[in-house]
Amino acid sequence: MKFCANCAAPVVRRVPPGDSLPRHVCDQCGEIHYQNPRLVVGCIPEQDGRLLLCRRAIEPRYGYWTLPAGFMENGETTRQGALRETLEEAGARVELGEAFSMISVPRVNQVHLFFLSRVADMAVKPGEETLEIRLFEENEIPWKEIAFRTVAMTLRHWFADRSAGRHAFHVEDIAA
Amino acid sequence: MKFCANCAAPVVRRVPPGDSLPRHVCDQCGEIHYQNPRLVVGCIPEQDGRLLLCRRAIEPRYGYWTLPAGFMENGETTRQGALRETLEEAGARVELGEAFSMISVPRVNQVHLFFLSRVADMAVKPGEETLEIRLFEENEIPWKEIAFRTVAMTLRHWFADRSAGRHAFHVEDIAA
Repeated sequence: MKFCANCAAPVVRRVPPGDSLPRHVCDQCGEIHYQNPRLVVGCIPEQDGRLLLCRRAIEPRYGYWTLPAGFMENGETTRQGALRETLEEAGARVELGEAFSMISVPRVNQVHLFFLSRVADMAVKPGEETLEIRLFEENEIPWKEIAFRTVAMTLRHWFADRSAGRHAFHVEDIAA
Repeated sequence: MKFCANCAAPVVRRVPPGDSLPRHVCDQCGEIHYQNPRLVVGCIPEQDGRLLLCRRAIEPRYGYWTLPAGFMENGETTRQGALRETLEEAGARVELGEAFSMISVPRVNQVHLFFLSRVADMAVKPGEETLEIRLFEENEIPWKEIAFRTVAMTLRHWFADRSAGRHAFHVEDIAA
């Protein structure tokens, strides 16, 4: 951020009065521009014990496999965002279950949140961000071609929990 | 947002190619300025069956009671944010437990996340945003003076779960 989004004057980076962290501050109009982490919301779509993965048609990680997920939008809930991204990226309608994993990635200022879900309809065409979709048995998961660490962690927890007979909620961090 | 934070040119609001929602777009430098929900992270600090609440010294809801919580910062994890806010607002160090409630508030583009915790040290002075702190038994909770609906919902779940003998994870939405 170089200029004030409110008045176009150059911003400076400094700790405002009463604050403890440097912010982008506009000395012309007084606006303080806060920057905060973003939520990435998605699903773990299951059908008859197999999991649906999407092969990415966009960077980063073009050609790698991922769970359907994306940035939560203003005006929606976490569950609405997870359903929307699953429809957009996987072309699948799902029945949403419990929240399953929430992984902080402070290096990129993100929190990734995945919900359990069951595939209800895979007839919809996947979006432009996806090369193909496929259902994988546990022994078919392409572990070396998973796009993101948060997705790999979530998949490992899912299969471990299935073996244990119950799906818990997992809070994790990927150290900066 | 009126001006591009990158080049100071006026921004326009329009759906970019390949996107489905209107964004603030800069036609001069090409930057697309996304706006996404923010996470509010906090604790439910417990000591000997009583819960610690803070009386707010700032607007909104000056004088009302709340759980210690605030906006998650870039570069931290959800748990680090919850610990930081509890130290800043309540002047308390806590031992963090499981995530307990996650409530979407789409009307204000926020997601509120609270962790179970045990008070380890209340000797630290509360921050400038807090008039006073106090430990409350269930029958002492000032229900009509709770600052935010997400806090009231979280407190109700906490006492109901305690009566039931186990604390689960609660995902809720406050409809827009």
